[in-house]
Amino acid sequence: MKSYREMSRDELIALKKELESQYEEAKAKGLKLDMSRGKAASAQLDMEMDFLDVINSGSDYKTQAGVDCRNYGLLDGIPEAKKLMGDLMGVPEDQVIVCGNASLSIMYDTVARSMLFGVQGSTPWCKLDKIKFLCPVPGYDRHFAITEQFGIEMVNIPMTPQGPDMDLVEKYVNNDPAVKGIWCVPKYSNPQGYTYSDETVRRFARLNPAAPDFRIFWDNAYAIHFLYEDQDDTLLEILSECEKAGKPDMVYEFCSTSKITFPGGGISAVAASKENLEYFKKTMTIQTIGYDKINQLRHVRYFKDINGMKEHMKKHAAIVRPKFEAVLEVLEKELGGLELGTWTKPHGGYFISFHTMEGCAKKVVGKCKEAGVVLTGAGATYPYKKDPKDDNIRLAPTFPSSEELSTATDLFVLCVKLVSVEKLLADMA
Amino acid sequence: MKSYREMSRDELIALKKELESQYEEAKAKGLKLDMSRGKAASAQLDMEMDFLDVINSGSDYKTQAGVDCRNYGLLDGIPEAKKLMGDLMGVPEDQVIVCGNASLSIMYDTVARSMLFGVQGSTPWCKLDKIKFLCPVPGYDRHFAITEQFGIEMVNIPMTPQGPDMDLVEKYVNNDPAVKGIWCVPKYSNPQGYTYSDETVRRFARLNPAAPDFRIFWDNAYAIHFLYEDQDDTLLEILSECEKAGKPDMVYEFCSTSKITFPGGGISAVAASKENLEYFKKTMTIQTIGYDKINQLRHVRYFKDINGMKEHMKKHAAIVRPKFEAVLEVLEKELGGLELGTWTKPHGGYFISFHTMEGCAKKVVGKCKEAGVVLTGAGATYPYKKDPKDDNIRLAPTFPSSEELSTATDLFVLCVKLVSVEKLLADMA
Repeated sequence: MKSYREMSRDELIALKKELESQYEEAKAKGLKLDMSRGKAASAQLDMEMDFLDVINSGSDYKTQAGVDCRNYGLLDGIPEAKKLMGDLMGVPEDQVIVCGNASLSIMYDTVARSMLFGVQGSTPWCKLDKIKFLCPVPGYDRHFAITEQFGIEMVNIPMTPQGPDMDLVEKYVNNDPAVKGIWCVPKYSNPQGYTYSDETVRRFARLNPAAPDFRIFWDNAYAIHFLYEDQDDTLLEILSECEKAGKPDMVYEFCSTSKITFPGGGISAVAASKENLEYFKKTMTIQTIGYDKINQLRHVRYFKDINGMKEHMKKHAAIVRPKFEAVLEVLEKELGGLELGTWTKPHGGYFISFHTMEGCAKKVVGKCKEAGVVLTGAGATYPYKKDPKDDNIRLAPTFPSSEELSTATDLFVLCVKLVSVEKLLADMA
Repeated sequence: MKSYREMSRDELIALKKELESQYEEAKAKGLKLDMSRGKAASAQLDMEMDFLDVINSGSDYKTQAGVDCRNYGLLDGIPEAKKLMGDLMGVPEDQVIVCGNASLSIMYDTVARSMLFGVQGSTPWCKLDKIKFLCPVPGYDRHFAITEQFGIEMVNIPMTPQGPDMDLVEKYVNNDPAVKGIWCVPKYSNPQGYTYSDETVRRFARLNPAAPDFRIFWDNAYAIHFLYEDQDDTLLEILSECEKAGKPDMVYEFCSTSKITFPGGGISAVAASKENLEYFKKTMTIQTIGYDKINQLRHVRYFKDINGMKEHMKKHAAIVRPKFEAVLEVLEKELGGLELGTWTKPHGGYFISFHTMEGCAKKVVGKCKEAGVVLTGAGATYPYKKDPKDDNIRLAPTFPSSEELSTATDLFVLCVKLVSVEKLLADMA
């Protein structure tokens, strides 16, 4: 196909007219589709309904050590769940605390705790004039929302297929004591689906922060969320890397089963050095008597061990993979060679990152919405919702059915074409 | 029985010797009993194991309005659970947010939010030189632990059988702008089992706080935790009282099912004015995508409605009531007329409050512990763990079996006698 960039003004005008008529037709269909969030599809949840059967009135409700999971106790989780979630992250169980249904809440509470009480004896962040977090971009909007709410200044760090631009990360972290943290989704990153390279992880571990209370917020949300079991990306385990580098306290790792069992009904965990965990527990023990151990036990009994969990994820992959492929196929077929945008081709995770031509993302999302397809808001993948080039769009292929997805992606590429032609024409004027 | 206070020195010395020998015998038994916390007994939890069956792989997993409870969504809870928890507190469902497994966490987060962001536009509490909370005493140690952790100055307010000393509450709240809150357990109070009188509730509603960001923290933890269904205390509903008094925003009410279903696996809720709830949601929506809706649905399906929940509480009462009676019987039989202490006789809740002679509580708890019976630490019922008269002990009769309870209470009264005799002798010296 001919690149739009090589077209003459007249060719573009003719094309625009054709695309506009296609768009009006699409609008007339009255679509109502949602590709905005990383939600599991009903088919994924239907497949695992037996999860709800493993704990019932006839079940042994005790841990192996004999603790009654129905009652109060075990602030930091049942040992079996620590083991399971530890294995998910590749860390020993004694470096794990198992919490409630959302790792987002652990992250929020971790920042809140640092604001109010500092980090292991440092000045509470709320008492400091300015604090900063590094934000690899495009990134996860809910991370940025946390730091924005706490008034923490966010600094954009460009992402590469190997992870964040580490030259820049080192420059900031090693020189600016106001830099207290960095948000990372190290495997199948949100929204690109990139996995940090071994070298990137090692450079993280070798950071030499100007601020002693600097922490890496390592949100390992997609640790086993592969699309192709024989092409699962590998991620170097960061806790032991930091330990080897003599900085055992520098990282907090988070994970959950939100996209392994039920998004609203999973369990979450944090892994860190024992010193960090002890500090966490000082506030956790005031905040709660303990998390839902019945649900922890339910997870342990359902999966038995990490191998059971990985087997289970193959079933998810079987449902999610064709959806990614459907979207990627339409993108390739309809946009390949046109030079209107670039997109990622992830081996896992929940998203595809799409870059339009500069200044087109908002308009594409707007046009899609007008025709009944909701995408993640343009700008959402950047701090303060400000995409400096207005060119990034996050595609979330998991929730719609395959049929809906084809329809939605057809509309998406149509909108990309239309907005691009408009831009090219405007640039000529 | 003859009051110890009327005994001569010689009589006391003889008695002391006898009590000491009884105590040595008791110690020799090698007891290992725990009366320290308000934990449900296994019998209570065994009785409700069918709770774990109501949601299974064959269940309809949708709300009445068709929302899939397995997936993300509904930050503030499923409507059916709002209704159930609203009915538990006697408030309309649109004034309720249903949260995770612990009302303690909602309370902690509410204080944390006020510290960091203020209350509806007020100065964040962490920016103020001094803030204070009123603490009716004796009271709930976990409340005091929250305010202590945030560095909030706690002011003791004596409790009466009608509730906190309202003259003092009015004096502080209406005149001191540093007073930002008061901790209340208004029904079957921890540890006395007192229920606030209508007049007390009305005086709360008519408060005229010097601080516009003053809030009543109304922890209605034992709303339907009666021991005698025909003698259930009645508590005036405070949200509507505050509304009538023109102060709809002045109160936050908390409750949970921690002592209705499983202590670790229940659901919790907060009730407040719509303005307060909107403010809550501004931070909640950053902290979480939503709470465990499967567990909310499980509660709704199990109880059907508030009547089902009350029926269920009759079964709890049938198990708990004999335990309270066993303790009270021993206290009456062994200590009645001796003038060595006073104790409450609650119609509900989880505790009995015991007052020793001044300066004896720590010693009694210590002696019990030495002989293998763990009581709540003396002082725990006061802010900073400082019981000014060292005379209050919280008895928690629910967890041990009836047999264990008799043994434990026998030891307790023995220790009260022994420590009292020692004190009376020391006072004579």
